[in-house]
Amino acid sequence: MRLSRAFLPTLKETPADAQIASHRLMLRAGMVRQTSAGIYAWLPLGWRVLQKVEQIVREEQDRAGAQEILMPTIQTADLWRQSGRYDAYGPEMLRLKDRHDRDMLYGPTNEEMVTEIFRTYARSYRDLPRNLYHIQWKFRDEVRPRFGVMRSREFLMKDAYSFDLDYAGAQKSYRQMFVAYLRTFARMGLKAIPMQADTGPIGGNLSHEFLILAETGESQVYLHRDLLDFDVLGQAPDYEGDLSPIVDFWTSRYAATDEKHDEAAWNAIPAERQVSARGIEIGHIFYFGTKYSAAMGLQVQGADGKPVTPEMGSYGIGVSRLVGAIIEASHDEAGIIWPDAVAPFRLAVLNLKQGDAATDALCDRLYAAFDGDAVYDDRPERAGVKFADADLMGYPWQAIIGPRGAAAGKVELKRRATGERLELSLEDAIARIKGA
Amino acid sequence: MRLSRAFLPTLKETPADAQIASHRLMLRAGMVRQTSAGIYAWLPLGWRVLQKVEQIVREEQDRAGAQEILMPTIQTADLWRQSGRYDAYGPEMLRLKDRHDRDMLYGPTNEEMVTEIFRTYARSYRDLPRNLYHIQWKFRDEVRPRFGVMRSREFLMKDAYSFDLDYAGAQKSYRQMFVAYLRTFARMGLKAIPMQADTGPIGGNLSHEFLILAETGESQVYLHRDLLDFDVLGQAPDYEGDLSPIVDFWTSRYAATDEKHDEAAWNAIPAERQVSARGIEIGHIFYFGTKYSAAMGLQVQGADGKPVTPEMGSYGIGVSRLVGAIIEASHDEAGIIWPDAVAPFRLAVLNLKQGDAATDALCDRLYAAFDGDAVYDDRPERAGVKFADADLMGYPWQAIIGPRGAAAGKVELKRRATGERLELSLEDAIARIKGA
Repeated sequence: MRLSRAFLPTLKETPADAQIASHRLMLRAGMVRQTSAGIYAWLPLGWRVLQKVEQIVREEQDRAGAQEILMPTIQTADLWRQSGRYDAYGPEMLRLKDRHDRDMLYGPTNEEMVTEIFRTYARSYRDLPRNLYHIQWKFRDEVRPRFGVMRSREFLMKDAYSFDLDYAGAQKSYRQMFVAYLRTFARMGLKAIPMQADTGPIGGNLSHEFLILAETGESQVYLHRDLLDFDVLGQAPDYEGDLSPIVDFWTSRYAATDEKHDEAAWNAIPAERQVSARGIEIGHIFYFGTKYSAAMGLQVQGADGKPVTPEMGSYGIGVSRLVGAIIEASHDEAGIIWPDAVAPFRLAVLNLKQGDAATDALCDRLYAAFDGDAVYDDRPERAGVKFADADLMGYPWQAIIGPRGAAAGKVELKRRATGERLELSLEDAIARIKGA
Repeated sequence: MRLSRAFLPTLKETPADAQIASHRLMLRAGMVRQTSAGIYAWLPLGWRVLQKVEQIVREEQDRAGAQEILMPTIQTADLWRQSGRYDAYGPEMLRLKDRHDRDMLYGPTNEEMVTEIFRTYARSYRDLPRNLYHIQWKFRDEVRPRFGVMRSREFLMKDAYSFDLDYAGAQKSYRQMFVAYLRTFARMGLKAIPMQADTGPIGGNLSHEFLILAETGESQVYLHRDLLDFDVLGQAPDYEGDLSPIVDFWTSRYAATDEKHDEAAWNAIPAERQVSARGIEIGHIFYFGTKYSAAMGLQVQGADGKPVTPEMGSYGIGVSRLVGAIIEASHDEAGIIWPDAVAPFRLAVLNLKQGDAATDALCDRLYAAFDGDAVYDDRPERAGVKFADADLMGYPWQAIIGPRGAAAGKVELKRRATGERLELSLEDAIARIKGA
């Protein structure tokens, strides 16, 4: 995208009300614009990142055997009366009435609706197991939304729901999501650690939350260093096989948030393997048995002809929140440092002298080689402005091209994460970036 | 996707309240499930089609130079008070209050919000022209929603908004969208005809709606047969060049809905070139000048240093509605006939004898060759059920494989649209399907 024609605005001032790095940087880099308290529009730079994050989530859900659907944002209150949650859910639920005065709500989550859908179609044991997920905007009317997209009111969530015939099946579904989550976050360049969690308003008796470490994290966490050293993407899991060894590795090493912290277990870890840090929650998985299926009358015919009430679990990832979390985990004084997999563009081509024929030609050729995955800073701005904006926006690679390099046929490449600089021919520069 | 593990439910009965073909077929094929009046969940089959339609819309918007953003669904009423539309918009607007009792609404469209966003960042003539679009769920509280996704309350819309310095620029933006719309619909296998339209509540003085012909269309339309014969995809347009010849071709031939019908102009067409039919609206474009920019104080500095109030247009496509419209235009007694470009899966592999080693092996090989773009009907069902479901769900190709063909190494291919049948080797069958 040519910046002279793009809608990629940056702000020079640091917004006064932004307390954490991701919020400040997302506003300064023109990724989002707040349109009401805790509600954001995603501008082109932010939208590209959000789509990349969403696509990684989708691919790993699909790989684990979950099937994508899309449930609507507006739900009837009747569904929530069936589960008993309509009255139990507090003022965070955005309630409304339609023109016929029917009680509706903007979905904060979808256990009821997915149970109703599954109930409509599932007849027999042959229709299970199934895991249905969607990636849809949710609304939770936080009393004091803050921290930008990390704690917004309208937010994008991936929520999956598993249906199994028995406890063993439900545990298998749980482990599939457990492993899928590890892979999802690892692909985004994040070290996410599963920790045992309270089940809260979803209910149930088994639950893990996934946290990444970041200085601005909302929770204090304690963990065994083994967990940070593990290479999640080292081998592809067989989702139909036994996933217990992977899950056991993670659950047998100590990892806990403040609320679940156990001093005795913690002290049993050698001091040099103890890691105490701040954490940000980016995913949460629950097994809750028949809580919703029983309340809502979901039954199928078992293999023996008798009715079975399916066991369920739900599995959430805060997709829009992840964009902020990635920035919290990966930035410096100058701006964002995008992991390659979620970068809005892989490369920024910085033309230091527009109008110089050799410089323009070299920039054009490099830009053309990246077919939509590069920005070309062809604005009539000083070099310093271009450097600062590219650092702020955090593209993994910058190609700095001026008359001297162009005359020699050389491109100066800068790797944003390390500051490393290389002087390469055009062909080598292209190969280097594409090979990264 | 293996049907034995998929959530691709079909209904045997025709739903009583579904009046039109697309509604009936979408329910029977398990594409959608109504969760409240006029509100639908998209099940895996429907969701795949919706995503394909959305992606074509996106690619053609990008190609025409529009830039994607994502605005939220919930808006503050304050924005609509600035334009004067908050009171003017009727009961179709879903109004609500948040926990702090602030007036909010579920966006039925986004002229106000995009003007506010653009106003925040645009400073000078260098920041124009720009065209920003998003593909987001909207809500219009229809008093009597019906016809399934063709007239639902929560629906997916692509809406683009152009900002230009003057009338000539605005006309260029309008023509870019005009041509992009022709290409978008043509890629989906639809013959869409632009017709001059009233501007309605959006305001402004130039507008076209795009209609496709279908027996169940809501409007009577009249057009010159030339328009049906034109090959829209015959040549790629140069969006930065002069698009007038293309637009002039379409606007110089007669095409009108009932409301705009002109008997004299119609009678001037040779009788054999007159086409009178029913039409379904699938897109609408508007030029409305400074209606919103003036009301909301959007100004930039012109090249001469003087303030300029940008000229705007808006451009909508009903993305979820299109799924229904495509079915209205392409179905038969047995079910849906998907155009290749939007088919949920390209191929259905029908195994007529599970457990027969040669049959299973041939099915497995064919299924594997399509890597996610085929369904494999491996359910323990009779052949008749598999034939009927494949016809209903409308996959462009069916591969019918039983013991006799498998022993001879032959696949029977059926083309859904024509009923044509071919007996081919595995390799030839794969080539035939991939080459289509």
